[in-house]
Parts: sequence; structure tokens; C-alpha cells
Amino acid sequence: MKATVYVTIKQNVLDVQGSAVKGALHSMGFQEVGSVRIGKYLELELDTNDRSEAEARVKAMCEKLLANTVIEDYRFDLV
Amino acid sequence: MKATVYVTIKQNVLDVQGSAVKGALHSMGFQEVGSVRIGKYLELELDTNDRSEAEARVKAMCEKLLANTVIEDYRFDLV
Repeated sequence: MKATVYVTIKQNVLDVQGSAVKGALHSMGFQEVGSVRIGKYLELELDTNDRSEAEARVKAMCEKLLANTVIEDYRFDLV
Repeated sequence: MKATVYVTIKQNVLDVQGSAVKGALHSMGFQEVGSVRIGKYLELELDTNDRSEAEARVKAMCEKLLANTVIEDYRFDLV
């Protein structure tokens, strides 16, 4: 089973990396870019076929390591 | 129009960050994790409604700034 995890900075937290990239894009002539937010994208291979167990385990991984839940949100898909 | 960009490390390139996270997950008891690959996830707000123009522009942004195409792949969706 494969898990795809998206970790994004919460809406009310300043995304400094995103602001920097937005500035760089503007200076390169991409004036149409309004806002940029940058997050992480993780692909995990899981050695299990139990979907509900995998869901609980990936949730635990996100809470404990993959996301800093003070400033980040996460969501994941299982395939 | 909103663009969602995924930048991932190419399959034949060693993902050191992914290896480190895999090691950390194992040491935390998540033994079922086989492989971890980490990429970037970007959300861009674009001030345009022309889909084909947006597609060309986002492709240019990826090629020029957002992805290092020597070691990274990218793909994007427009909404």
C-alpha cells in the first residue's frame, strides 16, 4: 500500500519560503502570480494491506514526525 | 486560476532526506515503512483565466525556477 502525504503551512501562518519564491517569480516577469504557498509532498511505501490500520499508522506518523501540527496541516491518500 | 505543482526527486537520484525520514520512522517503531520519497508541493494563485496560457506560463516557471530539472521531475494541475 502506498501513502501520499501533503504537509502544508496553516493559512494564518506566514509562509516565508513562499513569499521569497513569489518575489523571485515576479522579478523574472511572472507578474500574474498572486500568492505562493509551499509545502511538502511525501510518498511512503507501506508493507501492509490493511487499509484502516494503515490509515491509523500514517496519521500517527504525521502527528509524531512528518508534520509540525502547531504550524502545519496535513492530509494523506492511501492507494 | 490556481496551479498545484508537485516537484519530486527523480527515481534514479538518491533521496537523502527521504532516507533520513525512513530511518527516523523505523526507530520510532513504524517498521512497515518501505521507502520514503520527499518532494515539494506548491500552490500558486494565478491572475489569469486563460487555461492554455496559464499552462505554458507554469511550465516556464517550473523549468526556470521551481524545479531543478537535472535531478527533479515536476507535474502540475490547474483548477
